Amino acid sequence: MRVTITGAAGFLGRKVAARLALTGKVGARDITAMTLFDMVEPKPPAGAPFPVTCLSGDIANPADCARAVDRDTGVVVHLAAVVSAQAEADFDLGWRVNLDGTRALLEACRASGARPRVVFTSSVATFSGGQDAVIDDATRPVPGNSYGAQKAAGELLIHDYTRKGYIDGVTLRLPTVVVRPGRPNRAASSFASSILREPFLGEEAFLPVPESFALWIASPRAATDWLVHAAALDGKTLGLDRGINPPGLTVTVRDMMLVLQSVGGHAAMRLISRMEDKEVAAIVGAWPARFSDARAKALGFRAHEGLEALVRAFLEDDLAETKAMRA
Amino acid sequence: MRVTITGAAGFLGRKVAARLALTGKVGARDITAMTLFDMVEPKPPAGAPFPVTCLSGDIANPADCARAVDRDTGVVVHLAAVVSAQAEADFDLGWRVNLDGTRALLEACRASGARPRVVFTSSVATFSGGQDAVIDDATRPVPGNSYGAQKAAGELLIHDYTRKGYIDGVTLRLPTVVVRPGRPNRAASSFASSILREPFLGEEAFLPVPESFALWIASPRAATDWLVHAAALDGKTLGLDRGINPPGLTVTVRDMMLVLQSVGGHAAMRLISRMEDKEVAAIVGAWPARFSDARAKALGFRAHEGLEALVRAFLEDDLAETKAMRA
Repeated sequence: MRVTITGAAGFLGRKVAARLALTGKVGARDITAMTLFDMVEPKPPAGAPFPVTCLSGDIANPADCARAVDRDTGVVVHLAAVVSAQAEADFDLGWRVNLDGTRALLEACRASGARPRVVFTSSVATFSGGQDAVIDDATRPVPGNSYGAQKAAGELLIHDYTRKGYIDGVTLRLPTVVVRPGRPNRAASSFASSILREPFLGEEAFLPVPESFALWIASPRAATDWLVHAAALDGKTLGLDRGINPPGLTVTVRDMMLVLQSVGGHAAMRLISRMEDKEVAAIVGAWPARFSDARAKALGFRAHEGLEALVRAFLEDDLAETKAMRA
Repeated sequence: MRVTITGAAGFLGRKVAARLALTGKVGARDITAMTLFDMVEPKPPAGAPFPVTCLSGDIANPADCARAVDRDTGVVVHLAAVVSAQAEADFDLGWRVNLDGTRALLEACRASGARPRVVFTSSVATFSGGQDAVIDDATRPVPGNSYGAQKAAGELLIHDYTRKGYIDGVTLRLPTVVVRPGRPNRAASSFASSILREPFLGEEAFLPVPESFALWIASPRAATDWLVHAAALDGKTLGLDRGINPPGLTVTVRDMMLVLQSVGGHAAMRLISRMEDKEVAAIVGAWPARFSDARAKALGFRAHEGLEALVRAFLEDDLAETKAMRA
């Protein structure tokens, strides 16, 4: 079967593609071909044991989506999205890419007749309630930003296309992914990666929230594991409800600073400065930090590693590439 | 200010227009003009003390929506929709009218610069869980049908357009409206009106669910009162969450039969027959019948009258017109 990854030039897309190139399988099924899709043409993963087609296109353009899916497509991992601060700054672009783009992709899946497993990445940003909220599998999304509203609407598309038998969908509501490799981006949560990444590059990082601020996070390793697990899940065990809060890690900024000090020492700590950013604080301030993950655990999503392991994995997996990118 | 009603040829649209023609006001604000919009040109309400513009058009066509809203528009009551069984039978039409149509209307509101109060009618159909579920204001929509998914997605649009300041939106999740005047329609819940309407016309009605089956219902009078109340609510008291479960009435089919017998006698009762309809039973079987209405009560939505008053109101308000329609 073919596996298609949208947003495949992004860091999570590249990690999922690399993982699948390594194993050659999704669950028990062999991967015989892969399509990587993004705005800019993605690079194929090293050493893939199957042919890889790399496409550039506009996810909201039905003709472009049609090229990304065929009747042999068994799995689609849909990561293409406009991130939170950008979706907040450009309302039309956010709805176009995050809702219309998802719909165009689902229409391509429906037209293919392949009824693929679609793994959709929704977000903690679909919820609000902030530091006091505890989210469980039945909590209604009341988004505090457009990105969250678009992702929550995308979940409803995944849900209904699945119920009608056009796809076999699963939604993972991803926590804030930390440490993101590369550069700071336009996600409102970008600071959470910056404070655990920039000091290891000898760069300053700015903290727009107090040390007591809690976040719900996931490492790139955990997020990749969950996406691959979601791709292989038996849809029959899910029933009508296709949304899953994976078992993220609740950490405070203080926890992150302590690990930074423990791994990077005082030199690293000195590169962090507090700097107010009301726009960012307003977006991330609405995001809950505490989740019940009963359903995810029952479905076999693996528990999250600790915060120090997360930082050491960044140094092992992504520091060299991040340095090279900036050289 | 102008009031615009979409779906204004439908029975709820006509009742809301008639009420506003009678009072000439929304809350404390005078209505100076009204626009009625539907697929077929609606009729103006009798005795309106303001000019009424009647438009036919396609709600999913941005140019048609632009004609329905102007810079003087203070209130939009958005009732235009493809109903549940029809949306289930025609997937593309349902998403086009119920989601794209809502979005086109909201874009027209945004372009007008008027920041109107938009009253959006969502539905019990956004929820599932069926007879065992109890729904409160924080319950996540897990729709069992496309209509519910489309309405839940529409709620997210209302929510985000409001948060951005493009409109001032309120969503009412309407119960099954009973007794609908006129003919049986393609709503899956059509039977609930039929069993309290057809016998008064000397016609048979069919019951696709057992007598123990419970529903969450609202009379046309209650629904009209709530829509008008929602049009006048102070948006500042609502905060981020724009969705409201109004104080509907939980009744069983048996309750309805007892009232039918009490008001219509044995002759009426003899016109009801049990008839299986798996498609209808599957849709309505997923809808919850029990709701917490704490938020609605706190916001001043009036409590529902009893079931016998509901039936007598149908005879008073709608029986003559329903008879005339069929003559």
